[in-house]
Amino acid sequence: MMKIPSRIITIDRTPVFFGNDAVSSIDRFVTTLRPGAVFILADGNTRRQCLPLLLEKCTVLENSRVIEIEGGEAAKTLENAEKIWNELLASGADRSSLLVNLGGGVISDLGGFVAAGYKRGIRYINIPTSLMGQADAAIGGKTAVNLGNLKNQVGFFYAARAVFIFPGFLNTLPEAHLRSGLAEIIKSALISDAVMWRRVQKRPVAVLLRQPVESEPWPGLIAGTVKFKNKVVMQDYREQRQRKVLNFGHTVGHALEGYSQLHGKPLLHGEAVAAGMICASYLSHRKAGLSSADLDAISIYLAEGFAGGAVEGDSIAAIMEMMMHDKKQLNGHLQFTLISKPGQPVINISCNHAEVLEAIHFYNATLSGVS
Amino acid sequence: MMKIPSRIITIDRTPVFFGNDAVSSIDRFVTTLRPGAVFILADGNTRRQCLPLLLEKCTVLENSRVIEIEGGEAAKTLENAEKIWNELLASGADRSSLLVNLGGGVISDLGGFVAAGYKRGIRYINIPTSLMGQADAAIGGKTAVNLGNLKNQVGFFYAARAVFIFPGFLNTLPEAHLRSGLAEIIKSALISDAVMWRRVQKRPVAVLLRQPVESEPWPGLIAGTVKFKNKVVMQDYREQRQRKVLNFGHTVGHALEGYSQLHGKPLLHGEAVAAGMICASYLSHRKAGLSSADLDAISIYLAEGFAGGAVEGDSIAAIMEMMMHDKKQLNGHLQFTLISKPGQPVINISCNHAEVLEAIHFYNATLSGVS
Repeated sequence: MMKIPSRIITIDRTPVFFGNDAVSSIDRFVTTLRPGAVFILADGNTRRQCLPLLLEKCTVLENSRVIEIEGGEAAKTLENAEKIWNELLASGADRSSLLVNLGGGVISDLGGFVAAGYKRGIRYINIPTSLMGQADAAIGGKTAVNLGNLKNQVGFFYAARAVFIFPGFLNTLPEAHLRSGLAEIIKSALISDAVMWRRVQKRPVAVLLRQPVESEPWPGLIAGTVKFKNKVVMQDYREQRQRKVLNFGHTVGHALEGYSQLHGKPLLHGEAVAAGMICASYLSHRKAGLSSADLDAISIYLAEGFAGGAVEGDSIAAIMEMMMHDKKQLNGHLQFTLISKPGQPVINISCNHAEVLEAIHFYNATLSGVS
Repeated sequence: MMKIPSRIITIDRTPVFFGNDAVSSIDRFVTTLRPGAVFILADGNTRRQCLPLLLEKCTVLENSRVIEIEGGEAAKTLENAEKIWNELLASGADRSSLLVNLGGGVISDLGGFVAAGYKRGIRYINIPTSLMGQADAAIGGKTAVNLGNLKNQVGFFYAARAVFIFPGFLNTLPEAHLRSGLAEIIKSALISDAVMWRRVQKRPVAVLLRQPVESEPWPGLIAGTVKFKNKVVMQDYREQRQRKVLNFGHTVGHALEGYSQLHGKPLLHGEAVAAGMICASYLSHRKAGLSSADLDAISIYLAEGFAGGAVEGDSIAAIMEMMMHDKKQLNGHLQFTLISKPGQPVINISCNHAEVLEAIHFYNATLSGVS
């Protein structure tokens, strides 16, 4: 079994603790912070399924107060942030308080946003409980809420004091969520590590999902993704250059996700990103030299593994419109992160409206080819 | 006449332009930023009274879009921030956009907050039009909104690209607002510069308010306050130590201001701070060695110049309660910034409930002594 580091140093002096002893590290770490009051932000699932273990292992959290919000992307609103700020105020939280974000990407994005703004900044730690959170969302200091159906339009760069990744929490997840997180791991492989991509590619998604999360290749894939994200984020905390590679698949992906929430059948983030990566791979072939063979291999693997719906009829125009509102456009041009081959990202490729439309049609054709 | 610098460098590489040519500097400066769309945040007064001059002098602002909010402290809400974020989104503002905050402290606090959060940060400049804004609020990178009646509970540290101080805008103000801003100038003198305090003290507030803002001592007092604030803020951007000296008079002052808004007769910020400085001077005498002579001189000068109402009956308990919610308390103790003599601040003096009550009674007694 691959050796898993128990601690990886990441940006802005934020340590990332990883592995089966990660929960026990929390007690020691939080004690060194000497916090005043401690608040735990959770949703119904993590309160029920993860909080008991956390409280059992961490005596420092014994007198903490739990703030529960509903789960899901729709909870990542300014209204919820305000609700939590008022709850902190009512409980007398001051600048010595600590916020513990126990949950997936929604909890760490929203909780980080709340911590960043409360009295101009209190400390927080992330304990991601979803695969996506563990591999990606909880790491790197980006905090955000959505505005209406547009994702992450308001936010700040504000780093957690520490991140604790305990793979055991993944056993509490339904398969659909594991599948969703796997998409971020695949993204990470495609933009950073051809060897990791070949390792992923050997096993169809359905096969990967049948293997227990405590055994390989899972811990290696998570640790590899976290280490890669650290590297990118350390090089460029404020997303001026290298951090943009992480946007691979996210320009179309975010728009699809927002649209799907508006229209009754919400996609999970990872499903939307998988669809976005098929589009980005098409654009990579068209604009950045990705070979036909790689395009086919990537798009068929993703289409078989992630059953997002086709994008047809009126939804095409709506999704194009949402992309124009996304933050990755600059002076009105859509900027994409693409790959010239697996593991080789290229950033700031301007694509016009017609090219993006072609990519969406390619995505539809790939879906119907594998179904 | 005292020489006024036309440019003072302040924190985080933010230049402050000062003087009668400040408006003309805006055009040159904004051009160098090469912004995409430009948005001007104003209230009804500044739109009517300051915007025409700005547009006349700055061709670079010709095609800017004006976003107007209602004036006054009650406008500094998350709801208004969300409204502005949605307006920016609807206008297609992207990361290359620039926000121009044209107004008093409410506009620069709220506009800075909006700029900090929009797509995780766009650039902004401040053009303060009130005395308080010019001497204090627009400088230093603190942004904020209120939560209910509690001031500045949510905010971020996020610096303006530049601040432009044009004394001529002060002529658009009613006398009550000039008086309010004068309180911040007096605070600055009391915590930083005994000579400046003696110079202020020679002229009662009523006399100062009759002199035109373009002539001494006004420009010297504003420039002295700005330079002092620069010095403090440069030493300590995140308010860990030295920046706390700026809180002199603000612990009680903020609570009074919040309370007065709740109960029908809102105090201006400066009026509340003047009352807070009388309380802080009492505590300075009690806990930090301020002489009886200095205590009397300061409290009588402030009580004669600023006619805040007495704090009596039920309002005392309510104001004590609001102070306990203010961000200057740590682990439940109220922390005060006091002075050992004019120009000599001391920070982090813990005061208990009984001492703060005594200070409020002293304030009431001083008021009735001068009336």
